[in-house]
Amino acid sequence: MKTTIREIYKETEKYLNNEVVLEGWIRTSRSSKTFGFLELNDGTFFKNIQIVFEESLENFKEVEKLPLSSSIMVKGILVPTPEAKQPFEIKASEIEIEGYSTADYPLQKKRHTFEYMRTIAHLRPRANTFNAVFRVRSILAYAIHKFFQERGFVYVHTPIVTASDAEGAGEMFRVSTLDFHNIPMNDKKEIDFTKDFFGKETSLTVSGQLEGEAFALAYKDIYTFGPTFRAENSNTARHAAEFWMIEPEIAFADINDDMQLAEDMMKYIIKYVMENAKEEVEFFNSFVDKGLIERLENVVNSDFGRITYTEAVELLQKSGEEFQYPVEWGMDLQTEHERYLSEKVFKKPVFVVDYPKEIKAFYMRLNDDGKTVAAMDLLVPGVGEIIGGSQREERLELLEQKIIENGMDPEDYWWYLELRKFGGTKHAGYGLGFERAVMYITGMTNIRDVIPFPRTVKSAEF
Amino acid sequence: MKTTIREIYKETEKYLNNEVVLEGWIRTSRSSKTFGFLELNDGTFFKNIQIVFEESLENFKEVEKLPLSSSIMVKGILVPTPEAKQPFEIKASEIEIEGYSTADYPLQKKRHTFEYMRTIAHLRPRANTFNAVFRVRSILAYAIHKFFQERGFVYVHTPIVTASDAEGAGEMFRVSTLDFHNIPMNDKKEIDFTKDFFGKETSLTVSGQLEGEAFALAYKDIYTFGPTFRAENSNTARHAAEFWMIEPEIAFADINDDMQLAEDMMKYIIKYVMENAKEEVEFFNSFVDKGLIERLENVVNSDFGRITYTEAVELLQKSGEEFQYPVEWGMDLQTEHERYLSEKVFKKPVFVVDYPKEIKAFYMRLNDDGKTVAAMDLLVPGVGEIIGGSQREERLELLEQKIIENGMDPEDYWWYLELRKFGGTKHAGYGLGFERAVMYITGMTNIRDVIPFPRTVKSAEF
Repeated sequence: MKTTIREIYKETEKYLNNEVVLEGWIRTSRSSKTFGFLELNDGTFFKNIQIVFEESLENFKEVEKLPLSSSIMVKGILVPTPEAKQPFEIKASEIEIEGYSTADYPLQKKRHTFEYMRTIAHLRPRANTFNAVFRVRSILAYAIHKFFQERGFVYVHTPIVTASDAEGAGEMFRVSTLDFHNIPMNDKKEIDFTKDFFGKETSLTVSGQLEGEAFALAYKDIYTFGPTFRAENSNTARHAAEFWMIEPEIAFADINDDMQLAEDMMKYIIKYVMENAKEEVEFFNSFVDKGLIERLENVVNSDFGRITYTEAVELLQKSGEEFQYPVEWGMDLQTEHERYLSEKVFKKPVFVVDYPKEIKAFYMRLNDDGKTVAAMDLLVPGVGEIIGGSQREERLELLEQKIIENGMDPEDYWWYLELRKFGGTKHAGYGLGFERAVMYITGMTNIRDVIPFPRTVKSAEF
Repeated sequence: MKTTIREIYKETEKYLNNEVVLEGWIRTSRSSKTFGFLELNDGTFFKNIQIVFEESLENFKEVEKLPLSSSIMVKGILVPTPEAKQPFEIKASEIEIEGYSTADYPLQKKRHTFEYMRTIAHLRPRANTFNAVFRVRSILAYAIHKFFQERGFVYVHTPIVTASDAEGAGEMFRVSTLDFHNIPMNDKKEIDFTKDFFGKETSLTVSGQLEGEAFALAYKDIYTFGPTFRAENSNTARHAAEFWMIEPEIAFADINDDMQLAEDMMKYIIKYVMENAKEEVEFFNSFVDKGLIERLENVVNSDFGRITYTEAVELLQKSGEEFQYPVEWGMDLQTEHERYLSEKVFKKPVFVVDYPKEIKAFYMRLNDDGKTVAAMDLLVPGVGEIIGGSQREERLELLEQKIIENGMDPEDYWWYLELRKFGGTKHAGYGLGFERAVMYITGMTNIRDVIPFPRTVKSAEF
């Protein structure tokens, strides 16, 4: 019967000693005069299945010369192989060639650098490492939806094209249909965006939070999961111009509820991936990041630490550690500080809360001390910051004042302010960079290697 | 105990005659001298819960004057009300005011037009119709993920910013960080896109299909679910500039497998929404579209029809019906024809297959007749086309030729062509416009009313 490699590994008993039909791609091939072996992968499972074919096969000569990645249909009996590494193999009675490959197929047996693999992003999911990465990416995405939907959160598609700047921080991509050869100008010698598609200046969103807040104040619990964009000119292993973000927002909730949600979510999604991508996680643990499983289990099994920013600063100052950036109250914590806190002090994930208001965004709620805001970052061993969130300023006058202090125009935020006017409540939320989460769970260290077709400075291939 | 309105409706027995604590927003309010009623909604459930409060309440005077949409915490006993319309109500012992609203709150009891509601998109999810729409949207999105993930499909995030044009059809938004006051030019007086962020001309994607194919040829079964964009200057009830699309792609599969998948998916997701958004679907059936539930049940319970384009044309020509657009072989079917086929002829969803090659995209597989391609559209009663798909041309030479015939440059599609060179297989896929699906399942007739913050010609508010 027609089946898949996943099916055969999951329900071996059902298929053993029966005839099966598989379709897939040849991963490796070797043969002698009278018989040959193929490793077949059909994309449904991380592991391959071994195909044995013998001289008696009608097209033996043709099959043994098939270039790697040729696609075939195999019919044969699944037999146990108690003496071999693999638990079973297929004795082929028929092999039909579906699509030929060529001798210059780029993914030959030898190892390639990740840099090279980026130049063949259309083929790299056929290689073990990337096959594992992108299946984990898919399963992780589903785990996130599952977590929130099971808790009754409403999934909101916040807009991608936007006329506002959620962070008030610039670095946005402009979206336009204006003719670049002939940009229209108005009387004041300004660009006449009324002629543009949307009738105003528009950009790609950097965050769906503000719109998410509007929905949280209708549904109580919501989340977004969509692409966001930063036109940041930083060519690092952790920055991409296009990345996906998850932003839950919860009403009738404060910063402590927010941290609890983040902790529950992290545990849930890691556990889900470990259970549903077992083979992939084991592969990463063996070949990409030796301590991976231990680190992930530590996250699932420990209560996350909590410390205020002020306590953290004192602790870092007294640590005796020589940091590249000396620690001082009022500064933003650097990755070296974040990692020291989670790896050396807590040895587990830790929330740092109540940051100086000057280094945080305008919408974060001012604490009673007048100096800090109810912001939280989740720091994890091996990475540093993975989640950033806050309780939102629900007090209309304070928010309005903050907008003005930040040199922004309250009129641009009329609807955001109205959320505080018409039955506002305390509410909070956070952002999880999806690619950071994929990197964390796979041990991959370059963001370009966890995005199917990455977009970075000077690169938008495929 | 602290709970939600959803919990109370789902597990009434557990809460009845016990003290409960709820937080939510006041939907309606009326009172006499000694007592009052509030309808409270907390966003977790479509229905409200009635709160009875009496003079004995410490802040009775204040509570009875609270403007609509004020947010409150209520403590009280949940009591059965066998003689009333609603099954139970809460006798409040304490009401705490969390956030005041004002008398000019725009959503007063009177009905507003959908047009007006679009101007208050930040508040409209608090109104019944839109609350139902956006919860259905969320549940439908999850149903789609669930359907594909349960079948082992890999979810792929195809790129949003792209340097290629998947449809070869133009109408794209440009993405740029160039200074519009000073567009750089090269020696040949062309725009110098090497100076742009990505080092080349880039736009917003119109489809993730081509990249999806690359992943299907590694994983066998994949799907995309992400935003897509059309800079089309059409101001209709069915067009938005930004919309979400689902694009599954399956390898070792032909056009018949493709149709089977589409049929299975449609039935699954409709069933899931009917089961998991029961109250919302009933509301739509009563107040938005009287025949809705019957129509949806018909989809779930019938085998979809199948007819070739050529048969469909003959059938329409012989129908005796007077169409605005007379039917002729070679033309694209119009909505009037599509609706006639599904509503009058089949009275259920119907696939039309094998369209003339001239009216379909370059990547669709040429049939043996040399005149048609293996394309399919799914037509549904009440709407017309909801899904479009095809088997893809897997034969390298034919595909290359088609690209040239379409005036495109094969070099721009080098990687797409390589998918046919290195072990191509027969494969197929389709696209489902997510908003069309939401409209179909809710009965809403304007796409602006099923997108949280719609983007259309001359409009990108919020």
